[in-house]
Amino acid sequence: MLPEVTQKLLAAKKEKNISFAELEKILGRDEVWIAAVIYRQASADESEANKLIEALGLPPIFAKELTECPLKGLGPVVPTDPLIYRFYEIMQVYGMPLKAVIHDKFGDGIMSAIDFTLDVEKEEDPKGDRVKVIMSGKFLPYKKW
Amino acid sequence: MLPEVTQKLLAAKKEKNISFAELEKILGRDEVWIAAVIYRQASADESEANKLIEALGLPPIFAKELTECPLKGLGPVVPTDPLIYRFYEIMQVYGMPLKAVIHDKFGDGIMSAIDFTLDVEKEEDPKGDRVKVIMSGKFLPYKKW
Amino acid sequence: MLPEVTQKLLAAKKEKNISFAELEKILGRDEVWIAAVIYRQASADESEANKLIEALGLPPIFAKELTECPLKGLGPVVPTDPLIYRFYEIMQVYGMPLKAVIHDKFGDGIMSAIDFTLDVEKEEDPKGDRVKVIMSGKFLPYKKW
Amino acid sequence: MLPEVTQKLLAAKKEKNISFAELEKILGRDEVWIAAVIYRQASADESEANKLIEALGLPPIFAKELTECPLKGLGPVVPTDPLIYRFYEIMQVYGMPLKAVIHDKFGDGIMSAIDFTLDVEKEEDPKGDRVKVIMSGKFLPYKKW
Amino acid sequence: MLPEVTQKLLAAKKEKNISFAELEKILGRDEVWIAAVIYRQASADESEANKLIEALGLPPIFAKELTECPLKGLGPVVPTDPLIYRFYEIMQVYGMPLKAVIHDKFGDGIMSAIDFTLDVEKEEDPKGDRVKVIMSGKFLPYKKW
Amino acid sequence: MLPEVTQKLLAAKKEKNISFAELEKILGRDEVWIAAVIYRQASADESEANKLIEALGLPPIFAKELTECPLKGLGPVVPTDPLIYRFYEIMQVYGMPLKAVIHDKFGDGIMSAIDFTLDVEKEEDPKGDRVKVIMSGKFLPYKKW
Amino acid sequence: MLPEVTQKLLAAKKEKNISFAELEKILGRDEVWIAAVIYRQASADESEANKLIEALGLPPIFAKELTECPLKGLGPVVPTDPLIYRFYEIMQVYGMPLKAVIHDKFGDGIMSAIDFTLDVEKEEDPKGDRVKVIMSGKFLPYKKW
Amino acid sequence: MLPEVTQKLLAAKKEKNISFAELEKILGRDEVWIAAVIYRQASADESEANKLIEALGLPPIFAKELTECPLKGLGPVVPTDPLIYRFYEIMQVYGMPLKAVIHDKFGDGIMSAIDFTLDVEKEEDPKGDRVKVIMSGKFLPYKKW
Amino acid sequence: MLPEVTQKLLAAKKEKNISFAELEKILGRDEVWIAAVIYRQASADESEANKLIEALGLPPIFAKELTECPLKGLGPVVPTDPLIYRFYEIMQVYGMPLKAVIHDKFGDGIMSAIDFTLDVEKEEDPKGDRVKVIMSGKFLPYKKW
Amino acid sequence: MLPEVTQKLLAAKKEKNISFAELEKILGRDEVWIAAVIYRQASADESEANKLIEALGLPPIFAKELTECPLKGLGPVVPTDPLIYRFYEIMQVYGMPLKAVIHDKFGDGIMSAIDFTLDVEKEEDPKGDRVKVIMSGKFLPYKKW
Repeated sequence: MLPEVTQKLLAAKKEKNISFAELEKILGRDEVWIAAVIYRQASADESEANKLIEALGLPPIFAKELTECPLKGLGPVVPTDPLIYRFYEIMQVYGMPLKAVIHDKFGDGIMSAIDFTLDVEKEEDPKGDRVKVIMSGKFLPYKKW
Repeated sequence: MLPEVTQKLLAAKKEKNISFAELEKILGRDEVWIAAVIYRQASADESEANKLIEALGLPPIFAKELTECPLKGLGPVVPTDPLIYRFYEIMQVYGMPLKAVIHDKFGDGIMSAIDFTLDVEKEEDPKGDRVKVIMSGKFLPYKKW
Repeated sequence: MLPEVTQKLLAAKKEKNISFAELEKILGRDEVWIAAVIYRQASADESEANKLIEALGLPPIFAKELTECPLKGLGPVVPTDPLIYRFYEIMQVYGMPLKAVIHDKFGDGIMSAIDFTLDVEKEEDPKGDRVKVIMSGKFLPYKKW
Repeated sequence: MLPEVTQKLLAAKKEKNISFAELEKILGRDEVWIAAVIYRQASADESEANKLIEALGLPPIFAKELTECPLKGLGPVVPTDPLIYRFYEIMQVYGMPLKAVIHDKFGDGIMSAIDFTLDVEKEEDPKGDRVKVIMSGKFLPYKKW
Repeated sequence: MLPEVTQKLLAAKKEKNISFAELEKILGRDEVWIAAVIYRQASADESEANKLIEALGLPPIFAKELTECPLKGLGPVVPTDPLIYRFYEIMQVYGMPLKAVIHDKFGDGIMSAIDFTLDVEKEEDPKGDRVKVIMSGKFLPYKKW
Repeated sequence: MLPEVTQKLLAAKKEKNISFAELEKILGRDEVWIAAVIYRQASADESEANKLIEALGLPPIFAKELTECPLKGLGPVVPTDPLIYRFYEIMQVYGMPLKAVIHDKFGDGIMSAIDFTLDVEKEEDPKGDRVKVIMSGKFLPYKKW
Repeated sequence: MLPEVTQKLLAAKKEKNISFAELEKILGRDEVWIAAVIYRQASADESEANKLIEALGLPPIFAKELTECPLKGLGPVVPTDPLIYRFYEIMQVYGMPLKAVIHDKFGDGIMSAIDFTLDVEKEEDPKGDRVKVIMSGKFLPYKKW
Repeated sequence: MLPEVTQKLLAAKKEKNISFAELEKILGRDEVWIAAVIYRQASADESEANKLIEALGLPPIFAKELTECPLKGLGPVVPTDPLIYRFYEIMQVYGMPLKAVIHDKFGDGIMSAIDFTLDVEKEEDPKGDRVKVIMSGKFLPYKKW
Repeated sequence: MLPEVTQKLLAAKKEKNISFAELEKILGRDEVWIAAVIYRQASADESEANKLIEALGLPPIFAKELTECPLKGLGPVVPTDPLIYRFYEIMQVYGMPLKAVIHDKFGDGIMSAIDFTLDVEKEEDPKGDRVKVIMSGKFLPYKKW
Repeated sequence: MLPEVTQKLLAAKKEKNISFAELEKILGRDEVWIAAVIYRQASADESEANKLIEALGLPPIFAKELTECPLKGLGPVVPTDPLIYRFYEIMQVYGMPLKAVIHDKFGDGIMSAIDFTLDVEKEEDPKGDRVKVIMSGKFLPYKKW
C-alpha cells in the first residue's frame, strides 16, 4: 500500500538507525512534516529533499520524487490500526463539542488543514508519560458573496 | 439526531447568550469537556450537572440525565461538516506520519483517548487568527503476556 | 431530510412566487449564497436574515435560526438526483486532470472551499442554452513547518 | 491505479519539463481536456493524439491508445485527496442550493456533463491568488413522452 | 419512504381501480411517464397535473405539487426488490458489453437519460408472456474544448 | 479487472478493425450477446466459440475458455463510467414507476434477466441520433406453494 | 421497520396463539409462504387473504392490503440476526461450490427464486433435532440471442 | 481471487473431464462438500485429500494444503453472480418468514451452519427441470446462564 | 434505536436504583444474560420474565414481550461507542491469531455463539482494576457429508 | 493479504509440526500473543524474536522484522470467516448488555485493549468440549478536565 519510495526511505532510516527527531535537526523542519514527506503526503523543495536523501545515505535519484505534489490520503475509511483509530474516535466523540466551541470563539468558519502545523511532544509524567499533540491551523471564516 | 436533552441545553445556552468559556469559569471544567457533557459524550457527576443546569436556567430535573454513561459516538462514518471533516482529513493525510513519530518516541503502544484532554485556544495572528487544538493522552504501551 | 426552517422558507418562496434572482436584488447577495442560507448551509448576519424573512413575508422569529452556524453537508454519499450527480461525475472524470492542472499552475496546495464563491449564469445559445457555473476559491499553499 | 499509458505520459511530461499550458498551445485544445486525455478520461482523434505524443517525445505507438473510448471514472467514492475532496465538499454543501437556483432559472432538467467544458484560470489577488474554475454545460430539459 | 402525495395518489388509483394504461389515454402521455410523475420523479405542467388529479378524483390542491422539480432518485444503492434488482443485474452483466457496442456504433459519448423515453409492452407468447422494455435516449457525443 | 482472455480478444478485434455488427453477421448471434461472450458474461457453445476465435484470427486454444460458465458481474456497486451510470440512474429514477406499470399489466412477478434478450439500435434523427435499447424478458409470475 | 399490517397480523397470531402450521392447514398453503404473505413479501389472492384474516380474527379490511404486489426485500445488507445470518454465511462459504455443482449438473443458468418453493421441516434426532430446509426452483438456462 | 490450489484443481478437473458426481463416487463424500474442499472452504483428512488428488491426476504434493483449516468466506458482500445472488435474494425476501416459522417450530435458537449438510438434486420436470437444494443443520437452542 | 420495552425497563432499573448484580441474585441467572433479556437480545421464560418485571416494579403486562424470540443484533456495522469498539478492535487485531490457536487446539470448527456464556468480573488491582470477560462456547467441529 | 514474513513463519511452523502451545513453553509467553507476533499484530523484543525464529528453524534475518511496531488490523470490516464472525456476532448481540454491566460495575470508562491479555483454554466436556476465551483489560475511567 505504501509507495515504493516510502518503503525505500523507511528501510534506509531503520538501517541507519536514525530517528525522526534527528532528521528534524538536520533538515530544520519538524519531524512530523518530515515523516509526511517520507510517506508522500507532503512535498519538499529540492534542497530539503536532497538533505533528507543524503541523511538517509541514499543515491540522489530519490530526491526528485519527493518534490512532486502527491495524491494525498492513506488507509481505509475507518482506520483499523489502534493508534490511528484513537484519533478517529476522538472526532467521533468530541467532534461536535469541538465544533460548538470553535464557533463560539471564532464564528462560522473552519480550522485550515492546509495552513496547518502538527507537533508531537513527549510529556514525562510519573503516572505514565503522555503524548501531546498540538495542531495549529489558520481560522478561515466563510466568505459571503 | 441530537438527544433531546442536548437540544434543550443548547437552546437554553443560546437564550441565555452564555458562552462555553463562561461555563468553563462557572464549572471549573474545560469548555470542551462541558460541551461534551451537553452533547452526551461525557458524564458529569451530580454536582457538575447541577451547576451546569443552574447556569443555563433549567429545572433541576435535567441534571440527572447528564450523570449517566452515554452511548458515545456521533455523526456519519465520514463527516460531511467541513469543520469536522478537516480533522478527519488530517488523520487521512498525517495519520501514518504521526504513528511513525509516536512509535519513534515511545515504542509500540497508543495515545489513550480515555485518559485524555482536549483544549482549544485562539491564537491571535496579524495574518489571520489561528485555532490551536491541544490533545494530551496517556501513552499506553502494549502489554505482553 | 431538510430542516424545518428550510421547508418553511421554500414554501413561502413558492407562495410568493419570488425567484432567487429577485432575492439577490433585495439582499445584495448572490442568489446561490442566499439559497445556501435557506438550505441552512451558510449563516447570515442579523440584517441579512431579517431582509430575507421580510421578503418572504414570514414573521421575524424565523430570522434568528438563519444566523446560527449550521451543521453542513446534505444528502447521500453518492448523490442520486441526476442534476447533482452530474457534478459528482465531473469530479470522478475530471478530478485528477483538474488536480494536475492546478498543481502545474500553482504548486502544492488546494482551492479553498471556504474563501470561495459560486455563481450560476444562463448562457443563451441557439443550439440550446448553457448552464455556466463559476467557482472562485483562494489558493491555499501547503504550509511547511 | 493509473493506467500504464498515463504513467508513461506523465513521466515524459516531467522529463521534458513541459506544462499543460504549453501543451494547450501545441494542440489547440484546452489544458484540462488534454490532461483528461492523458488520464484516459477523454478520447483524442488521431491527429490530436499524434501531436501530443510528439510533444512529449514518445514513440508513435502510444498515440493509438489515446484514441480509444476509455472506461471513465477514477478514484474512491469519497475522494481522500484534499484538493479533489474540496470539490466534493462544495457539492455536499452547495449542491441543493445550486439545484434550486438552476431549476429557478431553467426549469426541470440538468446541466450536461458530456456537452461540457471545464476551464481553470489563475486570478492574481494581493490577498492571495485565486483558482477560478469555469464549467459550462448544455442545459438538458427532461423530455416528456 | 414514498412522498405523501405519492401515497395519496396511489391509494386513489387503487380505490378508483384505474390502470396506468387508462391514465395514458386520459392524459395523452405514456403510462411510465405518468407513473414517474406520481412517484415524484418527473414534473408535470399544470394542465397535465390537473387532468391526472381529476382522473383520480382528488381535490385540485394536489395538482400543484406535481408541477415542481422533484429531488429525484428512489430506493437503496443496490435494490432489494427482485423486479427492480433484475434491471440492476442486467447492467452488472451486460453493462460493459453494451458500452462496447454503443461505442462501436456511435463513438465516444453516452445515451442521454434526460432526453429519454421508456416504454413497457406486453408481448403475448405461448411459452409465457414477455415483458418488453424499450429505452430511447439521444446520443450525446463528448464535447472537446 | 477484465479477464485476460477478454483483453486478448478485444485487442485482436481492434487489430483486425472488425465491428461487433460484423461479428453478428459471422456468428448469426446478436452483437450484444457476442460482446457478452467476449467480456465473459455469457458462455458460447463450441461451434460459436470457434467461429468467433477464427473471425478474430486467434489460435483455437482461446475457444475453450469461452464455453465455460463464467462468474458473472463486472464493475463497482455504483458504476462510475458515465455511459453505464446512466442506466443505473434510469433505474434509480424510473425503477419504481416501471415496477408499478409491470405489476399493473402482469400481476405479481418479475421480468426474467435470464430468459432475456438485449438489442441496441441506432435511430437516425435530425435533432441528433438516438440510442434505442430493447430488452425482452419472459414474465415470471411468483409461484405460490 | 415491519409494515403496520405485518405488526397487526403478528400480534393477532400471538393473541390467538395459532401456529404457522395451523394456518397451513386452514389455508391449504405452505406455512413459509403464509409467513411471507404476513411479512408482505408475497401477495395472496382475495380468497386466501380472507381466510387468513378470518383465521386471525381480524376485520375484513385487512385482507385487501395482502393482495397487493409488495415492494420486496427486508433487513440490512448483511443480516445481523444470528438465525438469518447463518443462511448468509452458508452462501459465503458454499456459494461457489454450489455454483460449480449446479453448472456441472445443468449447464449455464440459474435456479429461479420466483418459480420457487421453500419448506422447513423438523427432523427429530437423538443427538439434537435438525432443521431441514428444502428449496426447489426451476432451472432457467441462459437464453442466447 | 481463487486460491492457487483451487485453480490448479479446477483446471485438472476440466482437463480430465470429470464431474463432481463422479468425484462423489470415488471419495464417498457428497459432491458439494468435495467442491467446498476444492474451493478451500472445507478441510479434508489425509486420506480424502489423497484420493481427490489422485482422481484429478495431480502430484501428491497438492494433498497437504487440502487438509489445512482454511480462512473461509468468498466473494463480495452482495454477490453479483446471478446464480449466487438468487440465494441472497431468497434470504432478503424469505429470511424473516423463515425465522418466524423456525421459532414457531423450535423455539429460540438457530440452524447450525457447521453441523450442517447441503445437497443438490436435479428434479426432472416436463415444465422445466428443477434445482432442489436440501439443507440440514442441527437446531441449536440459545443457552441461558 | 432501543425497543420501547428496553427503555421502560432501563428507566425502571434506574428509578429503583437496582444493579444488574442484584438482579442476578433475584433471578438466579447471570447479570449479562439478564441485561441481554432487557435489551431484547435473549428470550426469558415466563417465570424469569415475571421475576424480572416484579423486581423492577413494573406491571405484569411487560413480562410477555420478554418471552418472545427477538430479532437480534444491535448497533452499527463498526461500533462507534469506545467501550464496544474495543471488543471489535480486539477481533481486528487478535482475530487471526485466535483462529490459528483454536484450530491448533481443536481442529477445523468454531466456538459456538449460541451454546455460549459470557461473564464479566471485576479484578481489583493496585495498578488499576481490571475488567475480566470470560466467554465459554461449545466447540462445533465442521460436519463432513 | 498476510505479510510475507507471516507466511514464511506459518509455513515453517507447519513444516516443523510445532504447536502454538509448544512455542508458549519455549518463549515463556502466551500462545495467543506469540500467534499475534507471527501475524504481525504485536511486536517482540530482540530476545523473544530470536527464540521464536530459532524454534521455527529459520535464519536469524527474520527476527528483526518481528521487533518493529506493525500497522495493526487484519481482514474485512465484517469478517466472513465463521470462526472469527462468531466473535463479531457476540458483540452485535451482547455488546450493549456488556456495556451496561461494565458501567454498572465500574462507572464511565472502558476496558483497555492495549493493557490487555487474551487466553484460550480447552475445557473438556462430555457433551462436547468447550472453547474458553478469557480477556483481561485494565479499566480506564474517562478523565475529566
